[in-house]
Amino acid sequence: MSIPVWTALPTATLRVDAGFRLDDVDADATPGFEGDKATGKAELASRRKVLSDLQERLYAESRAGEAEDGVLLVLQAMDTAGKGGIIRHVVGGVDPQGIELAAFKAPTAEERAHDFLWRIEKRLPRPGFIGVFDRSHYEDVLIARVHALTDASEIERRYDAIVEFERTVVASGIRLIKVMLHISPDEQKKRLMERLERPDKHWKYNPGDVDERLRWPDYMAAYQTAIERTATPDAPWYVVPANSKWYARLVVQELLIAALEDIDPRWPAADFDVEAEKKRLAAS
Amino acid sequence: MSIPVWTALPTATLRVDAGFRLDDVDADATPGFEGDKATGKAELASRRKVLSDLQERLYAESRAGEAEDGVLLVLQAMDTAGKGGIIRHVVGGVDPQGIELAAFKAPTAEERAHDFLWRIEKRLPRPGFIGVFDRSHYEDVLIARVHALTDASEIERRYDAIVEFERTVVASGIRLIKVMLHISPDEQKKRLMERLERPDKHWKYNPGDVDERLRWPDYMAAYQTAIERTATPDAPWYVVPANSKWYARLVVQELLIAALEDIDPRWPAADFDVEAEKKRLAAS
Repeated sequence: MSIPVWTALPTATLRVDAGFRLDDVDADATPGFEGDKATGKAELASRRKVLSDLQERLYAESRAGEAEDGVLLVLQAMDTAGKGGIIRHVVGGVDPQGIELAAFKAPTAEERAHDFLWRIEKRLPRPGFIGVFDRSHYEDVLIARVHALTDASEIERRYDAIVEFERTVVASGIRLIKVMLHISPDEQKKRLMERLERPDKHWKYNPGDVDERLRWPDYMAAYQTAIERTATPDAPWYVVPANSKWYARLVVQELLIAALEDIDPRWPAADFDVEAEKKRLAAS
Repeated sequence: MSIPVWTALPTATLRVDAGFRLDDVDADATPGFEGDKATGKAELASRRKVLSDLQERLYAESRAGEAEDGVLLVLQAMDTAGKGGIIRHVVGGVDPQGIELAAFKAPTAEERAHDFLWRIEKRLPRPGFIGVFDRSHYEDVLIARVHALTDASEIERRYDAIVEFERTVVASGIRLIKVMLHISPDEQKKRLMERLERPDKHWKYNPGDVDERLRWPDYMAAYQTAIERTATPDAPWYVVPANSKWYARLVVQELLIAALEDIDPRWPAADFDVEAEKKRLAAS
């Protein structure tokens, strides 16, 4: 972590603890960060190499068959909150060969015929990789609850199923980082309006976005419950103020760096005789 | 294409035509490019945005359900020729959300039980996406031939099967760019030696690399035949001199840009009433 831009680590300040209230989160704030947008952008650029180097070591372990650990970043958010920007500007800063990205849209008929975790499990990252979920199994307790796509008892069952599922994921060696990008309704209105005003952004707009927006309080209640029920010590939630895009990106970058530092991947040792190979190569 | 760094477009100069002889390709050369390494690196950086913008338009079409076309970059090369660097520095310059990357290793038992194209077909990019194959079905006529993993008549059959397969791929709307990164044996020796000399590169080295190196002439003969037999007007091969990494990266970036310019993706038009939506949004 560079000094002195952070006065408190986002791994600590933004981590959901007991008594968490989503209502209390200020989407405009930049907790723990001393500095403005320009400082934040410079920091994002300078930390990119740190993340990239750690990722390369992890990937090296996987290529050597030594990787036991992986990382999974779960991104959840209301529309326009900046998931795409995180993927482009943070995830995009590392070698694509080490990334496994999965975007979960509305489930297909085949997926609906299975348990809601069926399609999720298939996309878990392999050891040595950084998996990124653009939406996830949490949609099954968010949109599913807000739109009453299933009955309340099934939603209840799912919270417990998620906790159990994530326990097995973490036990398999995956560092799980669950992020909710949190914007305010006013900020969303501004961003949606920009999409309407710019023809090159029309493709990002869907009239359904306004319908969902009208259910904002229902979504916040669904997030509150989902987060409360599934934030565990090993599978923590981070609620990241995201009205400032640069801040949210910086935080997610730091969360990834912290997870990789925790894995502490090392360059694999040679499993061959280096000097003998130098001779063979020289003679070839 | 920016002026004046290119005197001749790599889409033309490096494209394999009738009478092509791999032996005649100078791996040290930088055909058509006027400028040194520094100029090349600056050009790579400045063209990144062009590629990225084109890719975003293509992706927008796919999100709008309007994309009919895609791109598939096939990368083939001897060890150390720079496939990884192309993926990291060229492909890594575009939004990961629009990339579908597939690395083909030695086939699994399940894959071997099927026709050699079975695993390939499953990884073809969807419309709107840029697919990248790190190795490909060409291994089945390269390593398979050099190591006599199958008999000669099956190799013969495969050349024709590849041409037929690629015809259907192209007919489906995929721009197919087949690239052989071409290095010299001396350059490979230098790069392998560097991997042996740096402990942080040992993971990239495998004693089998020297065994393969000793079969260099066999591989070149296999490449010559594979390229001759499968270079078609719609599924061209580009043999890219790759002793200068910066040059090979620049060329592949230009090939991708040219393919996307040929698709000419446009921002999708709104399929909703923009003014009505502005009012709905303002009232929400």
